[in-house]
Formats: sequence, structure tokens, C-alpha cells
Amino acid sequence: MTVRDIIERHPRTVSLDRDLVLRCIDECFDCAATCTSCADACLGEAGVPELVRCVRLNLDCADVCDAVGRVVTRQTEPDLGVVRAAIEACIGICRACGDECERHAAHHDHCRVCAEVCRRCEQACSDLLASMA
Amino acid sequence: MTVRDIIERHPRTVSLDRDLVLRCIDECFDCAATCTSCADACLGEAGVPELVRCVRLNLDCADVCDAVGRVVTRQTEPDLGVVRAAIEACIGICRACGDECERHAAHHDHCRVCAEVCRRCEQACSDLLASMA
Amino acid sequence: MTVRDIIERHPRTVSLDRDLVLRCIDECFDCAATCTSCADACLGEAGVPELVRCVRLNLDCADVCDAVGRVVTRQTEPDLGVVRAAIEACIGICRACGDECERHAAHHDHCRVCAEVCRRCEQACSDLLASMA
Amino acid sequence: MTVRDIIERHPRTVSLDRDLVLRCIDECFDCAATCTSCADACLGEAGVPELVRCVRLNLDCADVCDAVGRVVTRQTEPDLGVVRAAIEACIGICRACGDECERHAAHHDHCRVCAEVCRRCEQACSDLLASMA
Repeated sequence: MTVRDIIERHPRTVSLDRDLVLRCIDECFDCAATCTSCADACLGEAGVPELVRCVRLNLDCADVCDAVGRVVTRQTEPDLGVVRAAIEACIGICRACGDECERHAAHHDHCRVCAEVCRRCEQACSDLLASMA
Repeated sequence: MTVRDIIERHPRTVSLDRDLVLRCIDECFDCAATCTSCADACLGEAGVPELVRCVRLNLDCADVCDAVGRVVTRQTEPDLGVVRAAIEACIGICRACGDECERHAAHHDHCRVCAEVCRRCEQACSDLLASMA
Repeated sequence: MTVRDIIERHPRTVSLDRDLVLRCIDECFDCAATCTSCADACLGEAGVPELVRCVRLNLDCADVCDAVGRVVTRQTEPDLGVVRAAIEACIGICRACGDECERHAAHHDHCRVCAEVCRRCEQACSDLLASMA
Repeated sequence: MTVRDIIERHPRTVSLDRDLVLRCIDECFDCAATCTSCADACLGEAGVPELVRCVRLNLDCADVCDAVGRVVTRQTEPDLGVVRAAIEACIGICRACGDECERHAAHHDHCRVCAEVCRRCEQACSDLLASMA
């Protein structure tokens, strides 16, 4: 992830724990891409009618993780209340999407992989949030 | 806003108050576009150094409003906990961005307009959230 | 669309025909929202397996229209080669998505509405592109 | 990049050269995140007035790379004309943004890093496009 190289060269001081920030950014963008791909893989399955809820949550999760990844990436003039609310929204959708993907993990290995990524993102967001308390 | 025409023809029942949902969608997407434009107008000002915080919050607000607008638009298999957390994040960023834009309203009329749009979006989100209690 | 009010107060001169620019922005963001909603309505249909290609193109169209709407919105330091390539990509996806939605127009009225919006966006992009020649 | 793991488990056959597709996806999402971060680092510099064009192109590049990364990620029912036009738009913005970042590379190391990422993304897109001919 090249964002790490940019943030190490950033003119402003990172206000939060840098390692937790970098892990959160990395997981948010990885989760956004993975959920985009899992939604598409679900759409391509013969059994798509059973996967409608999974597609829907994947799409939400991709959109929210992408936006939150951008918010957490920005180090210039951060508003910590905004960052906190964004991370909380991300934790909520990662949990819901991870739970739904897990329900299909035995039948669709892409859902199993996606559930793991959602869990990792939820954890990275929770760890960053805890450090802000 | 054509989303209204799609939602009126949607196969699933809208689970929340339809008028509040439609107003929230409309304001989220209008706010996303307006903040994108206000960030750009601020960047084009001779006094851009005084507007750095405004640009940053405009960019966050555009990204969050766009993601939340998409989440609220989707009526198939909604997860109300996810919708609620998304709307709360949107209220937070609209308030912060509206406050910052208001500080520049006397000098930059685009910031005055943008502050009004952020207030309207914050209100539409709050009204939808209240209806979900 | 409040972007109009921002652009009328923008510190930089709009380099292209302002009415065509504003129509293009308006149609891009309306198409992005409409395609997000049509993808969701298709997902909610009992006959979703027949609508898989429609969902996929709706998702692409929403993502591309949103990005291109943002590019065209920005009036500070535009790179016309970039703007042109972005608009061309938008024309391509609006045509493909409009064609696919039209195939389902008789059975799903949301697809009929969405096809019309894709056509309008394609036309607005084409008109702006022609004015740049 | 976990998208690789999803695409290896995808129910549909990848229609293009899989390694080139995966490299393109990886570079598009890395470039989107890097440009988001470089725009923010530029905003945080004391010399932001000299970096206005750089910020603007970084924002465009982030938005276009993110949308194109999503389009290329999707393997269900691809429309190759759409994919091609999206990749061409991505090449254009990566070149323009890379050129601009390079102009500031001697003074701002984050711009040097970002220029390299833009070049890599441009190359990955060009290689995938060439394979589609």
C-alpha cells in the first residue's frame, strides 16, 4: 500500500497512532475492493436469488469502506468527531456484511474470503476507535 | 431527481417513511455534488491557504454523502442498523462542514450556498433518523 | 441542482460552454443515482437471474457517471484532454446500460425509466464533447 | 490484494488475461488511494497555492481510478467496449496527474512517490488494453 509512503512524507503531523491509522486505511480499501468483487461473484452464481442480501450488503460495504478509507487517509485539518462517526459506520457495515458472507461460506468460497476481510476491517476500525478514546 | 421514479416502481416495499427516504436521498446526492464543487471553488481562490480546512471537510462531506446516499437509496434487504449508523455519520460530517463553510460565508458566496445545502442535508438525515426510532 | 449556484459564484472562468457543462453535471449525477436505484430494484425482482447483466451495467454506469460528474464539476485548472476522455467513457457506459435497460423496459418499468435517464446523460455528454471540438 | 483471492474463486471465466486484469485492478486501487493521500499532503503544505493544479488532478485521478478499478474488477457479463473506454480514460488521467506530480517531485517527496504510482497504473492499464486488441 503506497499510502504509507505518502503519509510518511506528509507535511502535517499524524494526530492519531500512525500504525493503527495505516492499518485502518489498508483494511478499508482492501475491504472495499473485496466486497465489490464478492458482489460481482455472487451475481455470477447460478443461485443468485439466495445471495440477494449478500450482494446488497457487499455493495453498501464497498461504498462505506471506500468513503471511510478516504476520510481516514486525510491528515490535513482532521475533525476527530467526524472521523469517529465515520469509523463507527464502517464497523457497523463490516459486521453486517461479514455475518451475511459467513452464512454462505460453506457454499461459496468467495464469501468465506470476503467474510474474513470484513472481520479484519472491523477489527482495524475498532482498534483505531479505541485508541481515540 | 429520477430516483423517486425508480423507487415508486420498486418491487420491494419501502420499509421506512417514503417521503423522508426520498428527501434524504435527494439531499445527500445534492450535498455530495455541492461539496465537490465548493472544494473546487475554494481551491480556485487566491486565498486558498485560509480555506484548507474548508476544502478538507468538503472532500470528506462529498465522499460520505455519496456513500450514504447510495445506502439509503437501496430498498432491497435493508439492514436498519447499518442504515442508522450511516445516517449518523452523515449528520456529523454535514454539521462540521456546514459550520466551516459558514465561517467563510461573508467572504465567499459559494461557501454560503454550500453551508445551506449542508444544513438541509443534516436536517433531512436527522428527520429520517428520528422516524426510525 | 445546487452545483449551478456554486459554479455561478466560482472564482475561475468556466472554460467550456457553461450551459452544456451544467447539463452534463446534472445528468451525470442523476444517472449515477438512478442506476444505483435500478440495480437495487433489479436485485429485488423475483426474476433476478434474467437481470444479472442489467445489474452489472447499472453498477458500472453508476460508478463511471459519478466519477465523470465530479471531473466535469471541477473548474479549477482543468485538463481538457482528461475531461474529454472521461466524457467519452461516460458516453460508452450510458449507451451500453441504456441498451440493456431498454431490453427489459416492457417487463420492468424501473428499467424503462433508467433507460431514458441513460439516454439523456449520453446526449448531454455528447453535446458537451461536440462543443469541445 | 484480496481481490485476487475472490477472482480465483469466481463462478465465471475471466474473459481477459487474468494476470493483466489483476495487475490493473491492483494498480487502479493503489493509485486511487495514493492520489487521495497526495492531494491531502499538498493541501497541508505551506506552498499550497503552487500545488492547486496538482491537487485538482490528484482528485480527478482518485475518482477515475476508483471507478475504473471497480469496472475492471467485475467479471460477470463484461461489456468489452465499456471496459476499453474506461481503461482509456484511466490512462489519460494517470498520465496527466503523473506529469504534474513529477513537476513537484524535487520539492515534495510525496509528489515523487505519487508520480511513480501514476506511471505504474498507466502502464498496467496500457498493457491490459494492448492485450484486448
